[in-house]
Amino acid sequence: MKEKSVAKVSAKRTNKSVTVADIPRVGPGTPSGEWFRRYWVVVGIARDLYDIPQAVKVLGEELVLFRDEFSKLGLLGLHCPHRGTSLEYADIECGGIRCPYHGWLFDVSGQCLEMPAEPKDSKFPQKVKHLSYPVQEQGGLIFAYMGPDRDDPPPLPKYGPLVDRGSQWQIEPVRHADYNWFNFFENSADPAHVCILHRHAGYGQQSWGNQFFSYTEMPSFEFVEMDYGMKVVMTKPGPKPGTEFVDEMSLALPSIVQVGDTEFVHAKMDAAVLIKEGSQCEHWMFVTPNDDEHFMLFTADNYKGPEANFFEKLKALREKETPAQEVMPYDKRKFMPYKGNVRKEDLMTQGTQGLLGERSEQLSVSDRGVIKFRKIVVDAIETGLRGGRPKGMVDKKQANEVYRLDTQVGVRAIVKNLELKIKK
Amino acid sequence: MKEKSVAKVSAKRTNKSVTVADIPRVGPGTPSGEWFRRYWVVVGIARDLYDIPQAVKVLGEELVLFRDEFSKLGLLGLHCPHRGTSLEYADIECGGIRCPYHGWLFDVSGQCLEMPAEPKDSKFPQKVKHLSYPVQEQGGLIFAYMGPDRDDPPPLPKYGPLVDRGSQWQIEPVRHADYNWFNFFENSADPAHVCILHRHAGYGQQSWGNQFFSYTEMPSFEFVEMDYGMKVVMTKPGPKPGTEFVDEMSLALPSIVQVGDTEFVHAKMDAAVLIKEGSQCEHWMFVTPNDDEHFMLFTADNYKGPEANFFEKLKALREKETPAQEVMPYDKRKFMPYKGNVRKEDLMTQGTQGLLGERSEQLSVSDRGVIKFRKIVVDAIETGLRGGRPKGMVDKKQANEVYRLDTQVGVRAIVKNLELKIKK
Amino acid sequence: MKEKSVAKVSAKRTNKSVTVADIPRVGPGTPSGEWFRRYWVVVGIARDLYDIPQAVKVLGEELVLFRDEFSKLGLLGLHCPHRGTSLEYADIECGGIRCPYHGWLFDVSGQCLEMPAEPKDSKFPQKVKHLSYPVQEQGGLIFAYMGPDRDDPPPLPKYGPLVDRGSQWQIEPVRHADYNWFNFFENSADPAHVCILHRHAGYGQQSWGNQFFSYTEMPSFEFVEMDYGMKVVMTKPGPKPGTEFVDEMSLALPSIVQVGDTEFVHAKMDAAVLIKEGSQCEHWMFVTPNDDEHFMLFTADNYKGPEANFFEKLKALREKETPAQEVMPYDKRKFMPYKGNVRKEDLMTQGTQGLLGERSEQLSVSDRGVIKFRKIVVDAIETGLRGGRPKGMVDKKQANEVYRLDTQVGVRAIVKNLELKIKK
Repeated sequence: MKEKSVAKVSAKRTNKSVTVADIPRVGPGTPSGEWFRRYWVVVGIARDLYDIPQAVKVLGEELVLFRDEFSKLGLLGLHCPHRGTSLEYADIECGGIRCPYHGWLFDVSGQCLEMPAEPKDSKFPQKVKHLSYPVQEQGGLIFAYMGPDRDDPPPLPKYGPLVDRGSQWQIEPVRHADYNWFNFFENSADPAHVCILHRHAGYGQQSWGNQFFSYTEMPSFEFVEMDYGMKVVMTKPGPKPGTEFVDEMSLALPSIVQVGDTEFVHAKMDAAVLIKEGSQCEHWMFVTPNDDEHFMLFTADNYKGPEANFFEKLKALREKETPAQEVMPYDKRKFMPYKGNVRKEDLMTQGTQGLLGERSEQLSVSDRGVIKFRKIVVDAIETGLRGGRPKGMVDKKQANEVYRLDTQVGVRAIVKNLELKIKK
Repeated sequence: MKEKSVAKVSAKRTNKSVTVADIPRVGPGTPSGEWFRRYWVVVGIARDLYDIPQAVKVLGEELVLFRDEFSKLGLLGLHCPHRGTSLEYADIECGGIRCPYHGWLFDVSGQCLEMPAEPKDSKFPQKVKHLSYPVQEQGGLIFAYMGPDRDDPPPLPKYGPLVDRGSQWQIEPVRHADYNWFNFFENSADPAHVCILHRHAGYGQQSWGNQFFSYTEMPSFEFVEMDYGMKVVMTKPGPKPGTEFVDEMSLALPSIVQVGDTEFVHAKMDAAVLIKEGSQCEHWMFVTPNDDEHFMLFTADNYKGPEANFFEKLKALREKETPAQEVMPYDKRKFMPYKGNVRKEDLMTQGTQGLLGERSEQLSVSDRGVIKFRKIVVDAIETGLRGGRPKGMVDKKQANEVYRLDTQVGVRAIVKNLELKIKK
Repeated sequence: MKEKSVAKVSAKRTNKSVTVADIPRVGPGTPSGEWFRRYWVVVGIARDLYDIPQAVKVLGEELVLFRDEFSKLGLLGLHCPHRGTSLEYADIECGGIRCPYHGWLFDVSGQCLEMPAEPKDSKFPQKVKHLSYPVQEQGGLIFAYMGPDRDDPPPLPKYGPLVDRGSQWQIEPVRHADYNWFNFFENSADPAHVCILHRHAGYGQQSWGNQFFSYTEMPSFEFVEMDYGMKVVMTKPGPKPGTEFVDEMSLALPSIVQVGDTEFVHAKMDAAVLIKEGSQCEHWMFVTPNDDEHFMLFTADNYKGPEANFFEKLKALREKETPAQEVMPYDKRKFMPYKGNVRKEDLMTQGTQGLLGERSEQLSVSDRGVIKFRKIVVDAIETGLRGGRPKGMVDKKQANEVYRLDTQVGVRAIVKNLELKIKK
């Protein structure tokens, strides 16, 4: 790896151009918020949506998600447009959701259907349309479109692990975190942390991790701009001349991460077989900001390999990743213990960073993935603001294609000039 | 009920005129706060004031209420004018309240009587007068006057249920709520919610409620401007031609509500007798804002009818109003369960509305009571700001009259042209 | 004591001159904060610093205190300069503290020693120097210098009770409080409160307190400007003509208090002997603001007298100072009970005062100690801002002298013209 000059993106905003400091803030009317609203975002898990309305905050907006009694999904403004009472307490009935205060009834499109206290011949109900966003279910996740063309939204991409599944798949329980979504997201543009932060996490207990994510001999990292965002390519010399071990991660805009090596690292399959055959598990994380200090993490796993009960095994192995740190009686630190559990390690480091654009940073060569990725996101925000198609957005021509994030793991012939080879 | 054009009061403030958005905010120096301070306000319950000072926040001001050892009531600024220590911890002794820090002693008028550490011949104590407000007890409630003429305040009105009592009366325990006082107050200008929100609350279990507050056949509503504020008149055709069932509620400025039908609805007396004889229970609620997000509710009940142990019966029936909603294990909504208990239903709907003037609203025909009432309050605020006598304020000529809020309930000959008939 | 005109220091800031309202605010860049940073401040207790980093907020700055594996003390900025992760979770190893995220290693000077993910020949580590402050341990307390000359800081004064100890000494457990540090500090410039607030605290149970701190016959108070700050001199006529009882307290800038009468008042030694021989206990309190709403209190005691097990006895007597107040079931006041325990009495009065400069005050003759002391502090802040040597700061010429706060307690020949006699 050669030291080279590092592309820099200023963290100060000048002349109203978008900067890195804009990325984390996604409220209505912000540059990043407007860009994020060009995509479909996950707002809930189908199996968690019962016969009661579910209040949910998305991109700084207070909303209520529900299924009407005909199972149609609706996502409306949380507060009734009449007098403001929370529709979280509404009754699901009569083809919609009925506010408890005065009985105004709204269908999933936000159209008011009834106002019980108004004169019986009143035309007022048909004039009232409440804030509503298009919602679609796909493979167990509920997506909403909160962008500018709500009457004619872009197609919901056909996400691989949700529409083209193997015999085994799962949606993990939602995770909630109380720091900025981008701290989590850009962490995957930074593979060095795997060898350092996660060096305690038991990778060393199996051959792949031991060889590949070594603290002392880290892999080479390449960062390849993709049509969907960026791919992180980690390589080491392979078992035979002209071959390389490869392990890839994908970051798709606005906020999807695919980790390629789930069964190697976490499920600890037979490395020799895996290296020959490659990964057969898609492990996707969809990040949805509630606001600038909170986000939800929705995870979809899809396994097409031969291992029986793959997810049960994965879960059992994750549960064994109990932090091994001894915590002394005088140690009152909030996140203790964390070492040895990948998710707790991430939570501690990302949760104490503060907000990008407010915190001080000194970046260098090993941060070139982060630097490049921030530039890609800033470009996408600017494209979105201009009304263009930002990276990762699927247009109507592509609507029927399955949307995959190709992350290779295993042994292959050495690939050179990655940027040129990978079709953008 | 005919659909008619609706009087509108703009929620945007222009040219410094008072608007609906001013109503909820009652801190010192605000238009609504200045208006509210023209009246006596309830600051405590006599039986709850022990031999220790009681910190209380009223209209955004931190105060301390106490009774000196001769039982004189005092309401002073919470912080000692000397160095700021809280007088909540003062000792009641020597004709006043003594700050624990340096022993400054204040009488109920705020006059400093002693400064133990000052030279014995010092004239300084007589120069120090702490913030104090006139306080009076009436029928178990403690009222304060925080307005401009504190040396010569207007008379405390002789409130009916406090000065002219039947054989049975009670002051209910104070209730505290953490939302804006006006959400609660204007709720009574909106009778439609009784038929809708409270349709689960067991009214249907007795003949009066069943007939009168029907969800499908609501009563007619009239809103009559009164000298004290506004009266809500709810009527339905009576048992004989030329008669009507009537049920009334009064809203007296700045913040008193009388509900007329307590024994019908809640005590479930024999409806036939009651309808013939009318209500004999006065049920008053005094709303006191602590600040713009909190209020206290003081309730005085006065019963002059023949039923023995009326309030015990009322209490037992209220306790039976346990919400009947089944709450499923997945239902983690904060206010659950609420259906079936009038007070919980109100708490949920009003507590989630947000602040008038900040929330969005779409009002229509069935909101004409709310619209009219807001206009009455805005007019009163403007009158108060001009130094005039706002509605509900009693001047010295009326000082000896008992202040009643006439709310009729029962059967009567049909009354037409209510606005003209009712003496303002 | 004659009533005389009182020197006043305006609480309003004009023309950027420093005022009393500036004193409490010590964040970076404030006048008081800049002044405070000219001194060494206590940031921790040696025995409480274990083999893990300790997050500590000082003067509004988030810092991390640690001892490297060679026992060298370090105080660095809490957030890693690389990507902001909290160094509270860093590993102490390899001659420094290693950030968990990417393994950047910093020594106690803030110098970056390693960046494991950077190219092996990278020069970047040597260019990165993290925020660090000089730290020194003295007699069990850890001091830091956060001022302008960090490469050549002024000498840490040789504080008497830390460097020149008797056979018995102790560092008390740190106390934390959630109000402004100056409410605590200036309380000692106000001896009248001892006779008033602490009249319940059991002083009356022993001859010295009974005679001296009488509520009805208070001692005379003099306030003497000193080179280190101010001394409070309390006197009463002595047992023989020409003699006086004396009890002194010292306030050394920026925030040290010495109380002279610890063994008289709290340890309740034989008053006759003590009065003859004088106090042999140094009782120092070092106040360190965390920010403008929180402070830490570090207490060092040094006893050179003949009493065996002096501190065990002192502790036992303090534990007996349980508030004797009966608390009635209706009494829900936060600080109850407080009467009878000096520290709880102080906590209540100081904790409810609000911020100097924001609260209203009316000061008079008995506040002349507070008034004089505030003026001394304002002068010191101005001196500090001009780059001069503020009171209480020790320069290099004085570096080898033991820094003592002379507080006399006992009987002495009457001293007149205190200001002239005491060498400044």
